[in-house]
Amino acid sequence: MKGHDMHVLILGAAGMIGRKLAERIAATGKMGGQTVDALTLVDIVEPQVAADFTGTRKALAADLTDAGMAEHLIADRPDVIVHLAAIVSGEAEADFDKGYAINLDGTRALFDAIRAVEGYAPRVIYASSLAVFGAPFPPKIPDDYHLTPLTSYGTQKAMGELLLNDYSRRGFLDGIGIRFPTICIRPGKPNKAASGFYSGILREPLNGQEAVLPVGTDVRHWFASPRSAVGYIDHAATLDTAPLGGQRNLTMPGVSATVGDQIEALRKVAGDTAVALIRHEPDPTVAAIISGWPRDFDTARAHDLGFRAETNFREIIEVYLEDEMG
Amino acid sequence: MKGHDMHVLILGAAGMIGRKLAERIAATGKMGGQTVDALTLVDIVEPQVAADFTGTRKALAADLTDAGMAEHLIADRPDVIVHLAAIVSGEAEADFDKGYAINLDGTRALFDAIRAVEGYAPRVIYASSLAVFGAPFPPKIPDDYHLTPLTSYGTQKAMGELLLNDYSRRGFLDGIGIRFPTICIRPGKPNKAASGFYSGILREPLNGQEAVLPVGTDVRHWFASPRSAVGYIDHAATLDTAPLGGQRNLTMPGVSATVGDQIEALRKVAGDTAVALIRHEPDPTVAAIISGWPRDFDTARAHDLGFRAETNFREIIEVYLEDEMG
Repeated sequence: MKGHDMHVLILGAAGMIGRKLAERIAATGKMGGQTVDALTLVDIVEPQVAADFTGTRKALAADLTDAGMAEHLIADRPDVIVHLAAIVSGEAEADFDKGYAINLDGTRALFDAIRAVEGYAPRVIYASSLAVFGAPFPPKIPDDYHLTPLTSYGTQKAMGELLLNDYSRRGFLDGIGIRFPTICIRPGKPNKAASGFYSGILREPLNGQEAVLPVGTDVRHWFASPRSAVGYIDHAATLDTAPLGGQRNLTMPGVSATVGDQIEALRKVAGDTAVALIRHEPDPTVAAIISGWPRDFDTARAHDLGFRAETNFREIIEVYLEDEMG
Repeated sequence: MKGHDMHVLILGAAGMIGRKLAERIAATGKMGGQTVDALTLVDIVEPQVAADFTGTRKALAADLTDAGMAEHLIADRPDVIVHLAAIVSGEAEADFDKGYAINLDGTRALFDAIRAVEGYAPRVIYASSLAVFGAPFPPKIPDDYHLTPLTSYGTQKAMGELLLNDYSRRGFLDGIGIRFPTICIRPGKPNKAASGFYSGILREPLNGQEAVLPVGTDVRHWFASPRSAVGYIDHAATLDTAPLGGQRNLTMPGVSATVGDQIEALRKVAGDTAVALIRHEPDPTVAAIISGWPRDFDTARAHDLGFRAETNFREIIEVYLEDEMG
């Protein structure tokens, strides 16, 4: 992109995607096909340094909303900034001020720090969310569906998308917004997020443990693997943004699948014994929450730009086996 | 709405719509069919007090973005707050910081001041804009068309719409966002806005003066009279917001008309002599700017909620004759 080796800054580098992205850069020495010679990892807690990275590396604990912090973080002018730092949906709903402070003000502080530097317009990869959309939905949600967030988190992400468009249009930065599918299979332990079961009903049985399914098997949702999530960011790092025009935010390709599809894919990969570990235990609260979630997307725009994901759930499970179970 | 007389606060009361709204309230003593017993007018310069208003009236010069000002302005808990205060499109594009400071931060300061008061959730009427939409457009833009602002002003207004939805959903305020058509015929002198000719080619000939038309007669746009603009706000003051659900922002009814339609309406009202005062003088700069502007809207949603405007351009001209030329 720039004709020289790249300096990459990852904000929110201690999260699952941030860690995997840093590991990939460390392992390959590249991002978007180009050599990375410096990698700076930032999160609210100090992220683990990618030990096998041979370029210049830094890791620091920082809060983007502290006065002067955004300016400090871009002081050595990274070529690519991956902005994953965010308060998640549940917390942004529970703590109104904190959600707006981090998700809106933090994003704006970063963009304004970049804007203040004359002649500096780095690639900024902004982590957006399907939460910018809200029910009622058409069967397949197009990229240009209207923004109707039904949560404060979704509102903050939608406002960030609008800022990304405006700051890019004005030439202050060169933004790409990535609307991630629900990431599946998340590695690690079960969590209490309403979406937790989507990973749990596969991950736990694959590890010989019981899992609870709180909804019916006909429930449909939109998925991609952690590997695909990292792949989107990698692809966005050096993509030509000219074809994006004024609309910098893209719904990423993914797999539309029912819980039943998930279970049948699990059966193919790990057999009936694994499937038998799924205990059906309907939870009306969880069912009510996810009834407002999107089911399917038309992602022709991102696909035409070269973004890719898995095409069925079996592939998503196989990525987990390869990347997490060796 | 509240079962008692209303206190109305108008922010941006020195502008054309704000003045006309205050005059209407003063003349009728009512808003949304309900008695107004207190009227507070605020603008960056002290607005004229509506002298014939018999209730409690106040006028003050204030900047919404000054620390503590929003809190001060709502200290006596107005029932209806009309938020018209804004930096206009051209200035928001020329002065990036000022546009975001007033249009975004000022709006948020107001909403946050309201949120901080326990048990207070006033009706907030937010002046939005067609600028939240950007080309390319369908022939008729629906109310749920995606937000694609192509200016910083439009971005700021779209962010305000999202905040209005979220703060209303959380119960902090009871918002209605009004996307105004281009107001025509604006009273007063010619101005240098790109849209100025839309009023000028009617207003100047009606006053026996020459006017310049910088574009072709086939150019189509979306209009309503100043009287309709005030009518929207009046109607929004006491409207039941329950049917709005999570989507509080409404494109208002208006008249889709070509410049040719405008001229023929002028001919009917004021004859060939008036039309002869329009001098065709093509200006490619103006033509380029307005080529990105919307032409027509589907406003079924606002119409079903009882919002009304003129239905043809002759009516728009007659409103000017009645309201401005006695």
